[in-house]
Amino acid sequence: MGLRFEIVAEDKATRARAGLLHTPHGIVETPVFMPVGTAGTVKGMTQAQLEELGVQILLANTYHLYLRPGHEIIRELGGLHRFIGWPHSILTDSGGFQVMSLKSLGRVTEDGVWFKSHLDGSSHFLSPERAVEVQVVLGADIIMTLDECVEYPSSHEALHRAVKLTGRWAGRAKEKLSALSSQPSTSGGAGGWGLGTREAPLVANTPPAANETQASKQSPITNHQSPIPSAQQSTIDKGQSSIPSPQPLAPSPSLFGVVQGGVDKDLRRESAEGLLELDFEGYAVGGLSVGEPKAEMYEVAEYTAQLLPRHRPRYLMGVGTPEDLVECVARGIDMFDCVMPTRNARNGCVFTSQGKVIIKNAKYARDESPLDPACKCPVCRRYSRSYIRHLLVAGEMLGAILTTQHNLHFYIDMMREIRQSLLSGAFAEFHSRVRAGP
Amino acid sequence: MGLRFEIVAEDKATRARAGLLHTPHGIVETPVFMPVGTAGTVKGMTQAQLEELGVQILLANTYHLYLRPGHEIIRELGGLHRFIGWPHSILTDSGGFQVMSLKSLGRVTEDGVWFKSHLDGSSHFLSPERAVEVQVVLGADIIMTLDECVEYPSSHEALHRAVKLTGRWAGRAKEKLSALSSQPSTSGGAGGWGLGTREAPLVANTPPAANETQASKQSPITNHQSPIPSAQQSTIDKGQSSIPSPQPLAPSPSLFGVVQGGVDKDLRRESAEGLLELDFEGYAVGGLSVGEPKAEMYEVAEYTAQLLPRHRPRYLMGVGTPEDLVECVARGIDMFDCVMPTRNARNGCVFTSQGKVIIKNAKYARDESPLDPACKCPVCRRYSRSYIRHLLVAGEMLGAILTTQHNLHFYIDMMREIRQSLLSGAFAEFHSRVRAGP
Repeated sequence: MGLRFEIVAEDKATRARAGLLHTPHGIVETPVFMPVGTAGTVKGMTQAQLEELGVQILLANTYHLYLRPGHEIIRELGGLHRFIGWPHSILTDSGGFQVMSLKSLGRVTEDGVWFKSHLDGSSHFLSPERAVEVQVVLGADIIMTLDECVEYPSSHEALHRAVKLTGRWAGRAKEKLSALSSQPSTSGGAGGWGLGTREAPLVANTPPAANETQASKQSPITNHQSPIPSAQQSTIDKGQSSIPSPQPLAPSPSLFGVVQGGVDKDLRRESAEGLLELDFEGYAVGGLSVGEPKAEMYEVAEYTAQLLPRHRPRYLMGVGTPEDLVECVARGIDMFDCVMPTRNARNGCVFTSQGKVIIKNAKYARDESPLDPACKCPVCRRYSRSYIRHLLVAGEMLGAILTTQHNLHFYIDMMREIRQSLLSGAFAEFHSRVRAGP
Repeated sequence: MGLRFEIVAEDKATRARAGLLHTPHGIVETPVFMPVGTAGTVKGMTQAQLEELGVQILLANTYHLYLRPGHEIIRELGGLHRFIGWPHSILTDSGGFQVMSLKSLGRVTEDGVWFKSHLDGSSHFLSPERAVEVQVVLGADIIMTLDECVEYPSSHEALHRAVKLTGRWAGRAKEKLSALSSQPSTSGGAGGWGLGTREAPLVANTPPAANETQASKQSPITNHQSPIPSAQQSTIDKGQSSIPSPQPLAPSPSLFGVVQGGVDKDLRRESAEGLLELDFEGYAVGGLSVGEPKAEMYEVAEYTAQLLPRHRPRYLMGVGTPEDLVECVARGIDMFDCVMPTRNARNGCVFTSQGKVIIKNAKYARDESPLDPACKCPVCRRYSRSYIRHLLVAGEMLGAILTTQHNLHFYIDMMREIRQSLLSGAFAEFHSRVRAGP
């Protein structure tokens, strides 16, 4: 397995630690914030600009890349790193979160999840095995097991069901990855990623009536609406029903398990213990930042982090604000991702040392100062609030480009500061400074 | 006056020449292509990326900047160079072309042009004096006289009227600039750009009935629809009706006259001779590339260029394709601007050494090669056609960013090659190579 996680500093007062994550595509300094490159691009940024910002690892969304351009095309083009021109580390999610957020979600069964494409309405099936398979084809350095995400608030019963299903899926994902790792590539690659042609295609050729019935017996988790995929819908991708064995793309990806359980500590413990038996290379805390009170989010993040082995990286999914990042580093988290800096940027909301600034506000029309007078990023060194406001008001691309560049710099730079303070033993001071606010 | 134009090489076989245009913001190597930064931004490019491409001069549209954010705001923020973070040369157009392309154009009178904003329908008046005044406030290095653009084809009478009106407007523009130059700034700036408070505001407070009637008597050019600006429309900017005297922003801008006359050589001669008497610092060829056959465009460009003094820069407005640029350099043109490389880029049309490529075409979905295998631009060094196609199909900003960067590189690099060939005496060879096609 390809991942080595080295802890280089630990805070005495908190659970914060600084580490080095060695992936097949380089070293990632932790704690780390991973910008979200949904469709293989961090919206508005060139890869060179990301490198200039010091980004060491990107997150890409399996769901989006699977639907467009399609993982098979990305495989043909040499894998995701090569396809997007990013020779550094990449983490892909399992696709589960997007699928389960879809309004046209079919059903969650024991086997996996039926869903309809948001692009063309075509029906697809995502299983724990298939999520691994697609991610292996994409060739990310770190891949995630398929988990069941439930909304907040949910009943104890629903949460418990999700914990159990997520645990079973984690086992199946791990098995699938082992099978792929040991299976010789039929294309002749040495010890590579041969993908079995026996695997059911992700695009359904028949409605899954039999599986569905069986799944319902095994598991009651079928409380979602269940549009039955029609034969018409399912024919769109027939050409893919027999998957050719791929060339080996990269060294074995590292698989992370996802702890679920909402804000219920007992369920978090049950979920974590189940995953620990499977021994993953890293662990994610999922199902947080979905609407629960912030204090609960912090508490559960801390509680869950404590349950995880010290020598494995811990990834808090989908979090969060700059304050969240500092608070959760203090609680033992090493990795973060969130659309907040990039999405907010496109909406004209920028992060500064003095708090958020809504740059479209008329009061900035004549403001000569940079987005953040304390910031040293390329945007703040060159452009004024008035200009950036003008660009956003006029709908010019450069507005979103500059706010995105600035916001990502803000996040990346803050993580650098956190890490530096951990290395120099000043994290407690940094932590209280952030808590005190601007 | 601030412009010095130095000819450093002349082709023996053609009328092509290479020069150095010394502006208050640097040296521009000619022949030059000026990327269009309509609203103070070349769509999708950062200023740093333009610098990396070797861009030495930008064109900005007075019409757009006057309407949004407003030239007064740009003055307050230190002028256009500072506002957009571009310390190099800038040329602004007069606003006339946009105004006369507007569907809601009011009327062209002897005094100037009434028009309605495409943003909010408010009524505005643009005169030759006002065009100079606004451009002086913006602070560009090179500014243009207001001219009357007529469509193709037009009657000889309409063309002749436009030539005469353009000539009278050119005289008024020149006078206005002289008046501004000699007028001491009331803000105490040394020999600066005091703008008279007596000047009629660009936003009308009363319908121009009297002027209109008078103008109609003087000139029959009132064949446009004439929506009378209502009092309600005209109140939107009342606060600007008394213009404060500005701080001096930059050394005196250089004013270019615009030769009109359609494809009629006699009219071109009449237009050029009228302007030559006024002695401008440079001359533009306007009213071409508006639908006339290409051969006529080349012929008229060459004919007009010959009428102009050797020691003044010649600017062919709104032209053109890569081939047009080479052909018109051969005919004696020094400066070009066109939205083609940037607009085409956003529509997925890229220029390559092998001709145009419509990158969204399905046949590029699996194409690993760069946009242009012969290109050394940052885009072609890093990204594949398949990736860029994916980005454009997915509507990702990075698609337009990369195609724009590539197309601008193609144009800028071609101008560099043209110039090099002029300096080394190999232009004829370059010219025939381009004519032979890929």
